[in-house]
Amino acid sequence: VALSAPLSARICQLNVELITIGDELLLGFTIDTNAAWLARELASFGVAVTRKSTCGDNIQEIVDTIRAALDRTGAVITTGGLGPTADDLTNESVAKLFDAEMELDQTVLDHLKALWTSRKRPGELPQANYKQAMIPRGAQVLKNNYGTAPGIFIEDKSGRWVATLPGVPSEMRGMFTESLRPILTERGSDRAKVIKSRTLRTVGVPESMLAERLSDLGQGFGGLSLAYLPHVDGVDIRLTSRDLPADEAEHALQMGANELYNRLDDIIYGEGDTELASLVLEMCRKGNLRLAVAESCTGGMLGGQITRIAGASDIFHGGLISYDNRVKRQLLGVLDSDIQEHGAVSEPVARQMAKGIRIRLGTEIGLSITGIAGPGGGTPEKPVGTVWIGIDVAEGRPPIPRPDGLPPITPFQEARLFHMVGSRDEIRQRSVQAALEFLRRSIASLIPSHT
Amino acid sequence: VALSAPLSARICQLNVELITIGDELLLGFTIDTNAAWLARELASFGVAVTRKSTCGDNIQEIVDTIRAALDRTGAVITTGGLGPTADDLTNESVAKLFDAEMELDQTVLDHLKALWTSRKRPGELPQANYKQAMIPRGAQVLKNNYGTAPGIFIEDKSGRWVATLPGVPSEMRGMFTESLRPILTERGSDRAKVIKSRTLRTVGVPESMLAERLSDLGQGFGGLSLAYLPHVDGVDIRLTSRDLPADEAEHALQMGANELYNRLDDIIYGEGDTELASLVLEMCRKGNLRLAVAESCTGGMLGGQITRIAGASDIFHGGLISYDNRVKRQLLGVLDSDIQEHGAVSEPVARQMAKGIRIRLGTEIGLSITGIAGPGGGTPEKPVGTVWIGIDVAEGRPPIPRPDGLPPITPFQEARLFHMVGSRDEIRQRSVQAALEFLRRSIASLIPSHT
Repeated sequence: VALSAPLSARICQLNVELITIGDELLLGFTIDTNAAWLARELASFGVAVTRKSTCGDNIQEIVDTIRAALDRTGAVITTGGLGPTADDLTNESVAKLFDAEMELDQTVLDHLKALWTSRKRPGELPQANYKQAMIPRGAQVLKNNYGTAPGIFIEDKSGRWVATLPGVPSEMRGMFTESLRPILTERGSDRAKVIKSRTLRTVGVPESMLAERLSDLGQGFGGLSLAYLPHVDGVDIRLTSRDLPADEAEHALQMGANELYNRLDDIIYGEGDTELASLVLEMCRKGNLRLAVAESCTGGMLGGQITRIAGASDIFHGGLISYDNRVKRQLLGVLDSDIQEHGAVSEPVARQMAKGIRIRLGTEIGLSITGIAGPGGGTPEKPVGTVWIGIDVAEGRPPIPRPDGLPPITPFQEARLFHMVGSRDEIRQRSVQAALEFLRRSIASLIPSHT
Repeated sequence: VALSAPLSARICQLNVELITIGDELLLGFTIDTNAAWLARELASFGVAVTRKSTCGDNIQEIVDTIRAALDRTGAVITTGGLGPTADDLTNESVAKLFDAEMELDQTVLDHLKALWTSRKRPGELPQANYKQAMIPRGAQVLKNNYGTAPGIFIEDKSGRWVATLPGVPSEMRGMFTESLRPILTERGSDRAKVIKSRTLRTVGVPESMLAERLSDLGQGFGGLSLAYLPHVDGVDIRLTSRDLPADEAEHALQMGANELYNRLDDIIYGEGDTELASLVLEMCRKGNLRLAVAESCTGGMLGGQITRIAGASDIFHGGLISYDNRVKRQLLGVLDSDIQEHGAVSEPVARQMAKGIRIRLGTEIGLSITGIAGPGGGTPEKPVGTVWIGIDVAEGRPPIPRPDGLPPITPFQEARLFHMVGSRDEIRQRSVQAALEFLRRSIASLIPSHT
């Protein structure tokens, strides 16, 4: 699938090749997610990836692969092979290629020792880690604030360079952002034409229906390309400008985004990396609303998703995982007669779970999920994927003041039936997203308006 | 991470290179899962992948990339670029490289037309699809039973060959299995030698300490290579046999696994895809033990992890997310004086949470987590990553019979302090794994023995 005609040299001044290193990648035991992340980051400031290669943990292979890439672009970023063990050979290979001695870097060694101590590991830094402090002479160290493996940036006299990053995604991302990106933005990247994107996030509508609603826009409009990026919890729509100067790209993206907001207002919840949970917490914070959850089929995932957001505790007080019906009755006050008559996955049970947890925890909002995640447990009337979500809102205990200018809370209850598709995991994740989105729309009137 | 010394020609009779084609891969909009899948499939019948490359949708790039790979191995498999649109160029590039004319293949065209009709599309087959029926002269068509794009297998006089597969994973997998694998198993692949692995899963010990405990084994022993695969929730150890016939490989792996079990009995919890949660549920089932959880910093993730396992409900009754201290006091009976004196992240609070939820839900086991996931909230005495885990075991309400031959439950409590490293997400995930592993070891005596 081409996203534009030949991507190579014509667009960006700086082309790089990516090389991911590790036998586990060649054997297929690990899926390479680093290359995709790096490519996106690089594109965001106008650096194009023209080729990716993967080679095994073998010095000659690594040297050959990097050399060929350098011959094509003069700029190479590697990931992997920076660990403490004998099979981590990347920096050594680069030293060989640049004909540089390996020497002990005291700053790196001190960092490794400090890390060892701060993690309260027993004894001294293991000998294996000393290897990580060996750096090719003349290379600049890229500090690793998230782990032990240090990266390097090394350049020869003709300006050809190699940067090495760790293979562990969290370490790689941190090192790129904090150490390598500043180096790259100073050199070579083309300020005249940039690759710029805006991503609008939608929830609750499958990709094919979304594409149908936007079918007249084809693969792009207004000089922008249009791409659908389906995730388990929703579909992102990415608008990309590829051959405009920065300010024109900005304008084109704004026009494009306006068009999408006009058409898809009912399903767009945010942009970029915005998480639904974070949006909901922000709204609750503005509206002085405290939140509690009661979960059945999701078993704690809703609470887990909300508490991914650091600082959730002022809003999110907690919840109950009522996996067993006895727990629904005894701790949430769900009527046994309703479970008998309508089943545990039903509107009255969802409503009573939401109300029960709200009263139990004294919050303003109770949010509940009860459903059939499968693979077993479905019936013709209630197939796998049947999910009821309930919301209960009223004044909390002890009451907290309403935000300026807003009337007291008029109590309300809502419940809605969803039919989720996918595997057990997918049904559960989609239920969590649906609950957050349902809540976001239900409490809009309780939040001070933006104006 | 290396799985053995140079992986290349010396091991398998047939080495191939993989090339994945598409701008969306270079731009990072798509994560390449095809290469990993293919590598595993090929390994299963003794074909080794020695390098992977990704290039964009441009004839010259594709030709150059395939040519270089052919020069190294003489055997190349590509994925992607077989669609109906103008940017799908793979078969055309291969034709150019093998100096073959493109010509219309009537069988492929008939297949495309039949597919169009059977999918109830309106009108005639679009002109764009005719392009897909153009095949390089002399190539063998690989039929696509799952979509429109046909693949090819083409070979020159010296026996160098290229096979092209579609980029859509389901189509690629089907075509490989049904059309390409039979071709490859007939030629070159070595039935006498297979690549076989066994993966042992450990939890709670970082990669470098694990490597130290096994340092005398180096990168392999007993004809097996040894590799460490760190994940956020533990480190897998993979033993691989590469140059033995199937039954000898089996035997070597058994010997190797025995050695590792002897040395690492305290941290190995299973093999292959075994999940800790599933093991714990299985043990509880054997021991007639019902489980409830109380979570603070993990906010529901422990319950979420346990309920990933379908059929958990007979064992797992539910839990409480006690994110707010008021919830710990009011619903779990944690003493306010202990929270004041020792803090919410402390041994007495972990113990009382475990006991509180066990009594509340009437289960035999209560399991609790309270910790500081960060990024804020740490102090010099209790840095981010400090996590207390508590276990409380006693007879449930109503009591259920003990398994045959086991004495009544003698109540016991345990609590343990952990220091987790990593991001907020990682600390939370590691806490969940640590709680499950702590529980697994604590209840071993309550389970009927295997004998």
